[in-house]
Amino acid sequence: MVSKNQIKLITSLQQKKYRNQHQLFFAETKKVIDEFLDAKFELVNLFTINETLFPTIEANKMYAISEMELKKISALKTPNECLAVFKMPETSDLVTEGVVLALDDVRDPGNLGTIIRLCDWFGIETLVCSMETVDVYNPKVIQSTMGSISRVKVIYTDLVSFLEKVNVPVYGTFMDGENIYTEMLPENAVIVMGNEANGISSEVEKVVTKRIAIPRFGKLQKTESLNVATATAITLSEFRRN
Amino acid sequence: MVSKNQIKLITSLQQKKYRNQHQLFFAETKKVIDEFLDAKFELVNLFTINETLFPTIEANKMYAISEMELKKISALKTPNECLAVFKMPETSDLVTEGVVLALDDVRDPGNLGTIIRLCDWFGIETLVCSMETVDVYNPKVIQSTMGSISRVKVIYTDLVSFLEKVNVPVYGTFMDGENIYTEMLPENAVIVMGNEANGISSEVEKVVTKRIAIPRFGKLQKTESLNVATATAITLSEFRRN
Repeated sequence: MVSKNQIKLITSLQQKKYRNQHQLFFAETKKVIDEFLDAKFELVNLFTINETLFPTIEANKMYAISEMELKKISALKTPNECLAVFKMPETSDLVTEGVVLALDDVRDPGNLGTIIRLCDWFGIETLVCSMETVDVYNPKVIQSTMGSISRVKVIYTDLVSFLEKVNVPVYGTFMDGENIYTEMLPENAVIVMGNEANGISSEVEKVVTKRIAIPRFGKLQKTESLNVATATAITLSEFRRN
Repeated sequence: MVSKNQIKLITSLQQKKYRNQHQLFFAETKKVIDEFLDAKFELVNLFTINETLFPTIEANKMYAISEMELKKISALKTPNECLAVFKMPETSDLVTEGVVLALDDVRDPGNLGTIIRLCDWFGIETLVCSMETVDVYNPKVIQSTMGSISRVKVIYTDLVSFLEKVNVPVYGTFMDGENIYTEMLPENAVIVMGNEANGISSEVEKVVTKRIAIPRFGKLQKTESLNVATATAITLSEFRRN
Protein backbone atom coordinates (compact mmCIF):
# COMPACT_ATOMS: atom_id res chain seq x y z
CA MET A 1 0.00 0.00 0.00
CA VAL A 2 1.20 3.48 -0.84
CA SER A 3 0.10 6.45 1.29
CA LYS A 4 -1.22 9.75 -0.03
CA ASN A 5 1.94 11.45 1.15
CA GLN A 6 4.12 8.96 -0.64
CA ILE A 7 2.16 9.46 -3.89
CA LYS A 8 2.57 13.21 -3.48
CA LEU A 9 6.30 12.92 -2.81
CA ILE A 10 7.00 10.53 -5.70
CA THR A 11 5.02 12.44 -8.30
CA SER A 12 6.77 15.64 -7.13
CA LEU A 13 10.08 13.94 -7.97
CA GLN A 14 9.18 14.23 -11.65
CA GLN A 15 10.26 17.87 -11.20
CA LYS A 16 13.87 18.89 -10.78
CA LYS A 17 13.02 21.45 -8.09
CA TYR A 18 11.61 18.78 -5.76
CA ARG A 19 14.33 16.25 -6.60
CA ASN A 20 16.90 18.78 -5.46
CA GLN A 21 14.88 19.81 -2.41
CA HIS A 22 14.51 16.20 -1.22
CA GLN A 23 17.79 14.94 -2.72
CA LEU A 24 15.84 11.96 -4.04
CA PHE A 25 15.03 10.48 -7.44
CA PHE A 26 13.17 7.40 -8.65
CA ALA A 27 13.78 4.58 -11.12
CA GLU A 28 11.45 2.02 -12.69
CA THR A 29 11.67 -1.52 -14.10
CA LYS A 30 13.55 -4.32 -12.39
CA LYS A 31 16.50 -4.03 -14.74
CA VAL A 32 17.14 -0.36 -14.03
CA ILE A 33 16.50 -0.67 -10.28
CA ASP A 34 18.88 -3.63 -10.05
CA GLU A 35 21.63 -1.60 -11.72
CA PHE A 36 21.30 1.11 -9.07
CA LEU A 37 21.24 -1.46 -6.27
CA ASP A 38 24.36 -3.14 -7.71
CA ALA A 39 26.08 0.23 -7.88
CA LYS A 40 25.34 0.75 -4.16
CA PHE A 41 22.96 3.67 -4.53
CA GLU A 42 21.08 4.15 -1.25
CA LEU A 43 17.55 2.77 -1.53
CA VAL A 44 14.84 4.68 0.32
CA ASN A 45 11.69 2.75 -0.67
CA LEU A 46 10.76 0.10 -3.15
CA PHE A 47 7.17 -0.23 -4.38
CA THR A 48 6.25 -3.37 -6.27
CA ILE A 49 3.29 -5.43 -7.40
CA ASN A 50 5.45 -8.54 -7.06
CA GLU A 51 7.61 -8.80 -3.93
CA THR A 52 9.32 -11.99 -5.09
CA LEU A 53 11.21 -9.91 -7.69
CA PHE A 54 13.45 -8.49 -4.97
CA PRO A 55 14.23 -11.24 -2.46
CA THR A 56 17.14 -9.38 -0.83
CA ILE A 57 15.48 -6.06 0.00
CA GLU A 58 14.80 -5.41 3.71
CA ALA A 59 11.12 -5.69 4.57
CA ASN A 60 10.89 -2.20 6.08
CA LYS A 61 11.81 -0.61 2.74
CA MET A 62 9.49 -2.70 0.59
CA TYR A 63 5.86 -1.86 -0.10
CA ALA A 64 3.52 -4.32 -1.80
CA ILE A 65 1.17 -2.30 -3.97
CA SER A 66 -1.55 -2.89 -6.54
CA GLU A 67 -1.25 -2.18 -10.27
CA MET A 68 -3.64 0.72 -9.75
CA GLU A 69 -1.37 2.21 -7.09
CA LEU A 70 1.70 1.73 -9.28
CA LYS A 71 -0.07 3.64 -12.04
CA LYS A 72 -0.49 6.59 -9.68
CA ILE A 73 3.22 6.93 -8.95
CA SER A 74 4.74 5.80 -12.26
CA ALA A 75 6.14 8.16 -14.90
CA LEU A 76 5.91 5.47 -17.59
CA LYS A 77 3.09 5.24 -20.11
CA THR A 78 2.89 1.54 -19.38
CA PRO A 79 3.95 1.10 -15.76
CA ASN A 80 6.13 -1.90 -15.15
CA GLU A 81 6.15 -3.94 -11.94
CA CYS A 82 8.13 -1.73 -9.61
CA LEU A 83 9.37 1.74 -8.73
CA ALA A 84 12.23 2.56 -6.36
CA VAL A 85 13.13 5.82 -4.67
CA PHE A 86 16.86 6.40 -4.19
CA LYS A 87 18.97 9.06 -2.49
CA MET A 88 20.99 11.18 -4.88
CA PRO A 89 24.66 10.39 -4.31
CA GLU A 90 26.99 13.15 -3.13
CA THR A 91 28.47 15.03 -6.03
CA SER A 92 31.84 13.48 -6.72
CA ASP A 93 35.02 15.39 -7.39
CA LEU A 94 35.85 16.14 -10.97
CA VAL A 95 38.56 13.80 -12.18
CA THR A 96 39.79 14.75 -15.63
CA GLU A 97 41.94 11.79 -16.53
CA GLY A 98 41.53 10.03 -19.82
CA VAL A 99 38.75 11.13 -22.13
CA VAL A 100 36.07 13.30 -20.53
CA LEU A 101 32.86 14.17 -22.35
CA ALA A 102 31.26 17.59 -21.83
CA LEU A 103 27.75 18.62 -22.90
CA ASP A 104 26.90 22.22 -23.75
CA ASP A 105 23.15 22.52 -23.11
CA VAL A 106 21.85 19.17 -24.37
CA ARG A 107 18.12 19.52 -23.67
CA ASP A 108 16.46 16.28 -24.74
CA PRO A 109 16.19 13.59 -22.00
CA GLY A 110 16.40 10.80 -24.60
CA ASN A 111 19.62 12.24 -26.02
CA LEU A 112 21.22 12.54 -22.56
CA GLY A 113 20.17 8.96 -21.78
CA THR A 114 21.66 7.65 -25.03
CA ILE A 115 24.87 9.62 -24.46
CA ILE A 116 25.23 8.13 -20.95
CA ARG A 117 24.87 4.62 -22.46
CA LEU A 118 27.60 5.55 -24.95
CA CYS A 119 29.90 6.77 -22.13
CA ASP A 120 29.38 3.49 -20.34
CA TRP A 121 30.08 1.49 -23.54
CA PHE A 122 33.24 3.41 -24.36
CA GLY A 123 34.56 3.55 -20.78
CA ILE A 124 34.14 7.31 -20.37
CA GLU A 125 33.89 7.70 -16.60
CA THR A 126 33.11 11.40 -16.31
CA LEU A 127 30.41 13.38 -18.09
CA VAL A 128 30.51 17.13 -17.40
CA CYS A 129 27.25 18.96 -18.13
CA SER A 130 26.57 22.67 -18.43
CA MET A 131 24.02 23.98 -15.93
CA GLU A 132 21.42 24.21 -18.72
CA THR A 133 21.78 20.56 -19.74
CA VAL A 134 18.71 18.44 -18.90
CA ASP A 135 18.84 16.99 -15.36
CA VAL A 136 20.26 13.49 -15.17
CA TYR A 137 17.70 12.47 -12.53
CA ASN A 138 14.80 13.34 -14.85
CA PRO A 139 12.72 10.10 -14.98
CA LYS A 140 13.01 9.95 -18.79
CA VAL A 141 16.80 10.15 -18.58
CA ILE A 142 16.94 7.51 -15.84
CA GLN A 143 14.83 5.10 -17.92
CA SER A 144 16.59 5.68 -21.23
CA THR A 145 20.05 4.99 -19.79
CA MET A 146 18.96 1.41 -19.07
CA GLY A 147 21.03 1.45 -15.89
CA SER A 148 24.26 2.77 -17.44
CA ILE A 149 23.85 5.88 -15.35
CA SER A 150 24.90 3.97 -12.25
CA ARG A 151 28.39 3.61 -13.79
CA VAL A 152 29.03 7.11 -15.19
CA LYS A 153 29.78 10.14 -12.99
CA VAL A 154 27.67 13.06 -14.16
CA ILE A 155 28.64 16.49 -12.89
CA TYR A 156 26.88 19.82 -13.50
CA THR A 157 29.09 22.88 -13.52
CA ASP A 158 29.78 26.16 -15.27
CA LEU A 159 31.18 24.71 -18.49
CA VAL A 160 33.26 27.69 -19.59
CA SER A 161 35.10 27.99 -16.22
CA PHE A 162 35.66 24.22 -16.20
CA LEU A 163 37.08 24.21 -19.72
CA GLU A 164 39.29 27.22 -19.03
CA LYS A 165 40.95 25.35 -16.17
CA VAL A 166 41.62 21.94 -17.75
CA ASN A 167 45.16 21.27 -18.90
CA VAL A 168 44.30 18.89 -21.74
CA PRO A 169 43.15 19.70 -25.28
CA VAL A 170 39.48 20.64 -25.61
CA TYR A 171 37.90 19.11 -28.75
CA GLY A 172 34.72 20.41 -30.34
CA THR A 173 32.95 19.32 -33.54
CA PHE A 174 32.32 22.02 -36.15
CA MET A 175 31.52 21.88 -39.87
CA ASP A 176 34.90 23.51 -40.65
CA GLY A 177 36.99 21.34 -38.29
CA GLU A 178 39.81 18.94 -39.18
CA ASN A 179 38.75 15.51 -40.47
CA ILE A 180 38.30 13.36 -37.34
CA TYR A 181 39.32 10.25 -39.32
CA THR A 182 42.84 11.53 -40.00
CA GLU A 183 43.56 13.49 -36.78
CA MET A 184 45.83 11.99 -34.14
CA LEU A 185 43.50 11.82 -31.14
CA PRO A 186 45.16 11.88 -27.69
CA GLU A 187 44.45 9.65 -24.66
CA ASN A 188 43.69 12.63 -22.45
CA ALA A 189 41.17 15.15 -23.72
CA VAL A 190 37.85 16.81 -23.14
CA ILE A 191 35.32 16.45 -25.99
CA VAL A 192 32.50 19.00 -26.09
CA MET A 193 29.18 18.23 -27.78
CA GLY A 194 26.68 21.03 -28.39
CA ASN A 195 22.98 21.75 -28.08
CA GLU A 196 20.49 19.98 -30.40
CA ALA A 197 19.46 23.12 -32.30
CA ASN A 198 22.38 25.50 -31.91
CA GLY A 199 25.47 23.33 -31.55
CA ILE A 200 28.33 24.61 -29.38
CA SER A 201 27.65 28.09 -27.95
CA SER A 202 29.97 30.95 -28.85
CA GLU A 203 31.26 31.25 -25.25
CA VAL A 204 32.25 27.58 -25.19
CA GLU A 205 33.62 27.76 -28.75
CA LYS A 206 36.22 30.30 -27.51
CA VAL A 207 37.74 27.74 -25.13
CA VAL A 208 37.79 24.89 -27.67
CA THR A 209 41.42 24.28 -28.67
CA LYS A 210 40.92 21.62 -31.40
CA ARG A 211 38.18 21.90 -34.02
CA ILE A 212 37.24 18.57 -35.56
CA ALA A 213 34.59 17.46 -38.06
CA ILE A 214 32.87 14.21 -39.01
CA PRO A 215 33.10 14.13 -42.84
CA ARG A 216 29.89 14.00 -44.82
CA PHE A 217 29.65 11.58 -47.76
CA GLY A 218 26.30 12.22 -49.44
CA LYS A 219 26.46 13.38 -53.08
CA LEU A 220 24.20 16.34 -52.50
CA GLN A 221 25.82 17.36 -49.21
CA LYS A 222 22.53 18.75 -48.04
CA THR A 223 22.25 17.06 -44.64
CA GLU A 224 22.74 19.84 -42.18
CA SER A 225 23.81 17.95 -39.14
CA LEU A 226 23.84 14.69 -37.32
CA ASN A 227 21.75 14.18 -34.21
CA VAL A 228 23.89 14.95 -31.12
CA ALA A 229 23.72 11.35 -29.88
CA THR A 230 24.87 9.85 -33.21
CA ALA A 231 27.63 12.48 -33.53
CA THR A 232 28.76 11.57 -29.98
CA ALA A 233 28.76 7.88 -30.93
CA ILE A 234 31.05 8.46 -33.92
CA THR A 235 33.36 10.82 -32.01
CA LEU A 236 33.81 8.52 -28.99
CA SER A 237 34.35 5.58 -31.36
CA GLU A 238 37.16 7.49 -33.09
CA PHE A 239 38.85 8.39 -29.79
CA ARG A 240 38.75 4.76 -28.67
CA ARG A 241 39.51 2.84 -31.86
CA ASN A 242 43.26 3.57 -31.86
CA MET B 1 -10.01 27.27 -44.47
CA VAL B 2 -9.92 23.51 -44.09
CA SER B 3 -13.05 21.43 -44.69
CA LYS B 4 -14.37 18.69 -42.42
CA ASN B 5 -13.50 16.12 -45.07
CA GLN B 6 -9.95 17.41 -45.30
CA ILE B 7 -9.55 17.23 -41.50
CA LYS B 8 -10.88 13.68 -41.60
CA LEU B 9 -8.54 12.68 -44.42
CA ILE B 10 -5.42 14.26 -42.90
CA THR B 11 -5.94 12.87 -39.41
CA SER B 12 -6.56 9.44 -40.98
CA LEU B 13 -3.11 9.69 -42.56
CA GLN B 14 -1.59 9.28 -39.09
CA GLN B 15 -2.43 5.59 -39.63
CA LYS B 16 -0.51 3.39 -42.03
CA LYS B 17 -3.67 1.69 -43.29
CA TYR B 18 -5.10 4.97 -44.60
CA ARG B 19 -1.76 6.21 -45.92
CA ASN B 20 -1.56 3.08 -48.05
CA GLN B 21 -5.21 3.26 -49.07
CA HIS B 22 -4.90 6.87 -50.26
CA GLN B 23 -1.20 6.66 -51.25
CA LEU B 24 -0.71 9.94 -49.40
CA PHE B 25 1.34 11.16 -46.43
CA PHE B 26 1.87 14.52 -44.77
CA ALA B 27 4.82 16.59 -43.56
CA GLU B 28 5.05 19.60 -41.24
CA THR B 29 7.35 22.61 -40.72
CA LYS B 30 8.64 24.74 -43.56
CA LYS B 31 12.06 23.09 -43.50
CA VAL B 32 10.74 19.56 -43.97
CA ILE B 33 8.12 20.56 -46.55
CA ASP B 34 10.75 22.46 -48.56
CA GLU B 35 12.97 19.38 -48.66
CA PHE B 36 10.14 17.34 -50.19
CA LEU B 37 9.32 20.10 -52.68
CA ASP B 38 13.00 20.33 -53.66
CA ALA B 39 13.11 16.58 -54.14
CA LYS B 40 10.12 16.85 -56.55
CA PHE B 41 7.62 14.96 -54.42
CA GLU B 42 4.13 15.63 -55.78
CA LEU B 43 2.30 18.15 -53.60
CA VAL B 44 -1.43 17.60 -53.14
CA ASN B 45 -2.36 20.38 -50.69
CA LEU B 46 -0.54 22.86 -48.53
CA PHE B 47 -2.21 24.31 -45.44
CA THR B 48 -0.56 27.28 -43.79
CA ILE B 49 -1.22 30.12 -41.36
CA ASN B 50 1.22 32.26 -43.35
CA GLU B 51 0.94 32.12 -47.14
CA THR B 52 4.01 34.30 -47.69
CA LEU B 53 6.16 31.36 -46.54
CA PHE B 54 5.57 29.59 -49.85
CA PRO B 55 5.60 32.16 -52.67
CA THR B 56 5.99 29.60 -55.46
CA ILE B 57 3.10 27.25 -54.67
CA GLU B 58 0.13 27.37 -57.06
CA ALA B 59 -2.89 29.07 -55.55
CA ASN B 60 -5.22 26.12 -56.14
CA LYS B 61 -3.12 23.89 -53.89
CA MET B 62 -2.69 26.38 -51.05
CA TYR B 63 -5.15 26.83 -48.19
CA ALA B 64 -4.85 29.73 -45.76
CA ILE B 65 -5.94 28.42 -42.37
CA SER B 66 -6.08 29.64 -38.77
CA GLU B 67 -3.86 28.39 -35.93
CA MET B 68 -6.90 26.66 -34.52
CA GLU B 69 -7.47 24.81 -37.78
CA LEU B 70 -3.81 23.85 -38.00
CA LYS B 71 -4.05 22.37 -34.53
CA LYS B 72 -6.86 20.11 -35.73
CA ILE B 73 -4.81 18.54 -38.52
CA SER B 74 -1.30 18.60 -37.01
CA ALA B 75 0.42 15.57 -35.49
CA LEU B 76 2.88 17.78 -33.60
CA LYS B 77 2.51 18.69 -29.92
CA THR B 78 3.25 22.29 -30.85
CA PRO B 79 1.96 22.77 -34.39
CA ASN B 80 4.23 24.83 -36.58
CA GLU B 81 3.02 27.12 -39.37
CA CYS B 82 2.20 24.66 -42.11
CA LEU B 83 1.27 21.13 -43.11
CA ALA B 84 1.56 19.63 -46.58
CA VAL B 85 -0.02 16.52 -48.05
CA PHE B 86 2.12 14.69 -50.62
CA LYS B 87 1.62 11.69 -52.89
CA MET B 88 3.74 8.70 -51.98
CA PRO B 89 6.27 8.18 -54.77
CA GLU B 90 6.22 4.93 -56.76
CA THR B 91 8.35 2.28 -55.13
CA SER B 92 11.70 2.39 -56.84
CA ASP B 93 13.67 -0.61 -57.99
CA LEU B 94 16.13 -2.08 -55.60
CA VAL B 95 19.64 -1.04 -56.58
CA THR B 96 22.25 -2.79 -54.50
CA GLU B 97 25.38 -0.98 -55.49
CA GLY B 98 27.74 0.39 -52.89
CA VAL B 99 26.78 0.07 -49.25
CA VAL B 100 23.12 -0.74 -48.60
CA LEU B 101 21.65 -0.61 -45.11
CA ALA B 102 18.95 -3.13 -44.10
CA LEU B 103 16.75 -2.95 -41.01
CA ASP B 104 15.37 -6.07 -39.37
CA ASP B 105 12.21 -4.89 -37.53
CA VAL B 106 13.26 -1.48 -36.20
CA ARG B 107 10.08 -0.36 -34.45
CA ASP B 108 10.72 3.10 -33.01
CA PRO B 109 9.86 6.01 -35.35
CA GLY B 110 12.59 8.18 -33.79
CA ASN B 111 15.20 5.49 -34.44
CA LEU B 112 14.13 5.09 -38.08
CA GLY B 113 14.22 8.88 -38.53
CA THR B 114 17.71 9.12 -37.05
CA ILE B 115 18.91 6.21 -39.20
CA ILE B 116 17.58 7.91 -42.36
CA ARG B 117 19.53 11.08 -41.42
CA LEU B 118 22.63 8.90 -41.00
CA CYS B 119 22.10 7.31 -44.43
CA ASP B 120 21.84 10.77 -45.95
CA TRP B 121 25.00 11.96 -44.13
CA PHE B 122 27.03 8.91 -45.14
CA GLY B 123 25.74 8.77 -48.72
CA ILE B 124 23.84 5.50 -48.32
CA GLU B 125 21.22 5.71 -51.07
CA THR B 126 19.17 2.63 -50.35
CA LEU B 127 17.60 1.55 -47.07
CA VAL B 128 15.91 -1.85 -47.17
CA CYS B 129 13.37 -2.46 -44.40
CA SER B 130 11.74 -5.68 -43.27
CA MET B 131 7.94 -5.63 -43.51
CA GLU B 132 7.69 -5.26 -39.71
CA THR B 133 9.90 -2.15 -39.60
CA VAL B 134 7.99 1.03 -38.68
CA ASP B 135 6.45 2.78 -41.71
CA VAL B 136 8.64 5.51 -43.18
CA TYR B 137 5.58 7.72 -43.83
CA ASN B 138 4.63 7.67 -40.14
CA PRO B 139 4.41 11.39 -39.18
CA LYS B 140 6.99 10.94 -36.40
CA VAL B 141 9.47 9.41 -38.83
CA ILE B 142 8.86 12.15 -41.40
CA GLN B 143 9.50 14.87 -38.79
CA SER B 144 12.55 13.27 -37.20
CA THR B 145 14.36 12.82 -40.52
CA MET B 146 14.46 16.62 -40.90
CA GLY B 147 13.96 16.25 -44.64
CA SER B 148 16.71 13.66 -45.21
CA ILE B 149 14.03 11.21 -46.20
CA SER B 150 13.60 12.99 -49.52
CA ARG B 151 17.12 11.84 -50.47
CA VAL B 152 17.15 8.21 -49.31
CA LYS B 153 15.24 5.43 -51.10
CA VAL B 154 13.40 3.35 -48.53
CA ILE B 155 12.09 -0.02 -49.68
CA TYR B 156 10.00 -2.53 -47.69
CA THR B 157 10.46 -6.16 -48.62
CA ASP B 158 10.82 -9.64 -47.26
CA LEU B 159 14.29 -9.23 -45.77
CA VAL B 160 15.34 -12.88 -45.78
CA SER B 161 14.49 -13.38 -49.49
CA PHE B 162 16.23 -10.11 -50.35
CA LEU B 163 19.39 -11.08 -48.45
CA GLU B 164 19.44 -14.58 -49.94
CA LYS B 165 19.55 -13.09 -53.42
CA VAL B 166 22.23 -10.38 -53.05
CA ASN B 167 25.67 -11.21 -54.38
CA VAL B 168 27.66 -9.06 -51.92
CA PRO B 169 28.70 -9.86 -48.33
CA VAL B 170 25.95 -9.41 -45.73
CA TYR B 171 27.30 -7.83 -42.50
CA GLY B 172 25.53 -8.08 -39.16
CA THR B 173 26.62 -6.85 -35.71
CA PHE B 174 26.78 -9.43 -32.95
CA MET B 175 28.52 -9.49 -29.56
CA ASP B 176 30.78 -12.33 -30.77
CA GLY B 177 31.63 -10.79 -34.17
CA GLU B 178 35.03 -9.71 -35.51
CA ASN B 179 36.31 -6.32 -34.30
CA ILE B 180 34.87 -3.77 -36.75
CA TYR B 181 37.94 -1.53 -36.21
CA THR B 182 40.35 -4.08 -37.65
CA GLU B 183 38.20 -5.73 -40.34
CA MET B 184 38.76 -4.82 -44.00
CA LEU B 185 35.36 -3.44 -44.96
CA PRO B 186 34.41 -3.63 -48.67
CA GLU B 187 32.87 -0.96 -50.90
CA ASN B 188 29.92 -3.15 -51.79
CA ALA B 189 27.99 -4.72 -48.94
CA VAL B 190 24.68 -4.97 -47.17
CA ILE B 191 24.75 -4.09 -43.45
CA VAL B 192 21.89 -5.43 -41.33
CA MET B 193 20.87 -3.72 -38.09
CA GLY B 194 18.45 -5.47 -35.73
CA ASN B 195 15.38 -4.77 -33.63
CA GLU B 196 15.68 -2.54 -30.53
CA ALA B 197 14.96 -5.29 -28.03
CA ASN B 198 15.94 -8.50 -29.79
CA GLY B 199 18.67 -7.57 -32.24
CA ILE B 200 18.91 -9.51 -35.49
CA SER B 201 16.31 -12.29 -35.77
CA SER B 202 17.45 -15.89 -36.09
CA GLU B 203 16.07 -16.18 -39.65
CA VAL B 204 18.06 -13.15 -40.79
CA GLU B 205 21.13 -14.27 -38.80
CA LYS B 206 21.29 -17.39 -41.01
CA VAL B 207 21.86 -15.29 -44.13
CA VAL B 208 24.48 -12.99 -42.54
CA THR B 209 27.85 -13.87 -44.03
CA LYS B 210 30.12 -11.59 -41.93
CA ARG B 211 29.67 -11.18 -38.18
CA ILE B 212 31.15 -7.97 -36.82
CA ALA B 213 31.19 -6.31 -33.39
CA ILE B 214 31.73 -2.82 -32.04
CA PRO B 215 34.25 -3.31 -29.18
CA ARG B 216 33.23 -2.26 -25.70
CA PHE B 217 35.70 -0.34 -23.56
CA GLY B 218 34.12 0.10 -20.11
CA LYS B 219 36.03 -1.52 -17.21
CA LEU B 220 32.98 -3.34 -15.92
CA GLN B 221 31.75 -4.43 -19.35
CA LYS B 222 28.21 -4.38 -18.10
CA THR B 223 26.58 -2.29 -20.81
CA GLU B 224 24.44 -4.73 -22.68
CA SER B 225 24.04 -2.98 -25.95
CA LEU B 226 24.13 0.26 -27.83
CA ASN B 227 20.96 1.88 -29.06
CA VAL B 228 20.31 0.78 -32.68
CA ALA B 229 20.76 4.34 -34.03
CA THR B 230 24.14 4.87 -32.31
CA ALA B 231 25.33 1.40 -33.38
CA THR B 232 24.31 2.28 -36.96
CA ALA B 233 26.23 5.56 -36.70
CA ILE B 234 29.45 3.82 -35.67
CA THR B 235 29.04 1.04 -38.25
CA LEU B 236 28.39 3.39 -41.20
CA SER B 237 31.27 5.62 -40.06
CA GLU B 238 33.61 2.60 -40.16
CA PHE B 239 32.48 1.58 -43.65
CA ARG B 240 33.05 5.11 -44.92
CA ARG B 241 36.23 6.19 -43.14
CA ASN B 242 38.63 4.17 -45.30
